Amino acid sequence: MARVTKRSPIGVFDSGLGGLTVFKVLARRMPEESLIYFGDTAHVPYGSKSPEAIARFSSEVAKFLAGRGIKLLVVACNTSSAWALPAIRKAVKVPVVGVIDPGARAALGVSRGGRIGIIGTEATVKSEAYVKAIKNLRKGAKTVSAACPLFVPLVEEGWWSGDVVETVARKYAGPLKSARVDTLILGCTHYPFLKPVLARVMGSKVRLIDSAEETARETENVLCGLGLRAPRGGKGRREMWASDAPERFARLAGRMLGAKVKKVRLHHFD
Amino acid sequence: MARVTKRSPIGVFDSGLGGLTVFKVLARRMPEESLIYFGDTAHVPYGSKSPEAIARFSSEVAKFLAGRGIKLLVVACNTSSAWALPAIRKAVKVPVVGVIDPGARAALGVSRGGRIGIIGTEATVKSEAYVKAIKNLRKGAKTVSAACPLFVPLVEEGWWSGDVVETVARKYAGPLKSARVDTLILGCTHYPFLKPVLARVMGSKVRLIDSAEETARETENVLCGLGLRAPRGGKGRREMWASDAPERFARLAGRMLGAKVKKVRLHHFD
Repeated sequence: MARVTKRSPIGVFDSGLGGLTVFKVLARRMPEESLIYFGDTAHVPYGSKSPEAIARFSSEVAKFLAGRGIKLLVVACNTSSAWALPAIRKAVKVPVVGVIDPGARAALGVSRGGRIGIIGTEATVKSEAYVKAIKNLRKGAKTVSAACPLFVPLVEEGWWSGDVVETVARKYAGPLKSARVDTLILGCTHYPFLKPVLARVMGSKVRLIDSAEETARETENVLCGLGLRAPRGGKGRREMWASDAPERFARLAGRMLGAKVKKVRLHHFD
Repeated sequence: MARVTKRSPIGVFDSGLGGLTVFKVLARRMPEESLIYFGDTAHVPYGSKSPEAIARFSSEVAKFLAGRGIKLLVVACNTSSAWALPAIRKAVKVPVVGVIDPGARAALGVSRGGRIGIIGTEATVKSEAYVKAIKNLRKGAKTVSAACPLFVPLVEEGWWSGDVVETVARKYAGPLKSARVDTLILGCTHYPFLKPVLARVMGSKVRLIDSAEETARETENVLCGLGLRAPRGGKGRREMWASDAPERFARLAGRMLGAKVKKVRLHHFD
């Protein structure tokens, strides 16, 4: 493994495209940092798979990125952050930042009444990772969770607004509205694309939290703490990988990032 | 590899649960045949993946089933039938039956005006496999295809009726209704679960074709032709495998088959 330096890249990984919301904030906040993104499109979605499979797939990606010489790994996938951080930390030596703790902190930072709603994939909700993270930070906080398995396919389908997504969102939002949550964690990196719909459905008083900003801030803090920030003023490299269908990934990634993605490389594990 | 006999099992494979619609018909029509089902739940869904990945995953499953001594393989997955039959036939020596040709035949058998609609996953529609199969059988037939990527997650979510699936179905049905199709091929083994909704949306004059019946008939014909039908009067064994989350698979399979599924075994490839 190459020696890690300040100029080494940051690795960012997700089961598919969702983690690009984190990638985008990282690139904006720290343009001088080099970034390698990996979308595990051969195994997407993680949200309906077993904890064992999620840990296995995640560790393989982490080892691949470690082999490319990253100095830090951002697990930009809620499902993987919820289930696979111990396995990933065992698989690689670099520091690992997940999205759950930053999201929980951000939610408690803005919540007035401490009534936090959490939406995510089936696996993320089942893990209770957000619930535990929130209770760790504020014991008296109330939480309500709802699995929203149709949101990822809706985002991937490009149906970010309109009657279908609105109908689905109203169904999922029912229990959260009944519980009168004042803050809603978008506990899946795909969900920021549905923010306008979710804002309308939840009402203007509910604060929506996506963990991308907070995760990018934590990444910056960890790198500063380790003395591993790239020198300011430079321009970092961007590199993208997918484990299947790289052209399709490039097309959708360009749409999600609002900028042309020229090249996505293919690496598959099996 | 074990020698194939009349009593050897039939292998049935799908990316997930959908192929159980074929499994169910096979079990009803030929109770004396032993059946091994494999759901590749680690890689589900196939419909949004690349032709290369679909062929690779399918071949691995086929080889695994061949190793279990099957006498014939039913590829009960439209996406895999559309893209992977050559790779599967290269990978294993047993006869292979796909779902596309039977579905095309069944559609032409009932269509009055020869205007055939086809719905399926993104990959199945892109392959034009149904279009080619239909034109091979009747040159003058007209076809219209629509990819319906949300139907699989809707079925897996258990939303088989109600306003969400109805709204989605109306969106997808638009171009098919404009083209005034008289017959609609449900080109994905998940879709039979949405038959009532699709019947309502398409109107009573449109015939809905699911390829399960026709595929089971073809399987029977091939086995008869090869002299490999199990002796009548016996009771075949049933065996189920999944490449991830076997308990979840057992629970949903039980719901889909309308009978308790006691045991699903785990085999993963990577």
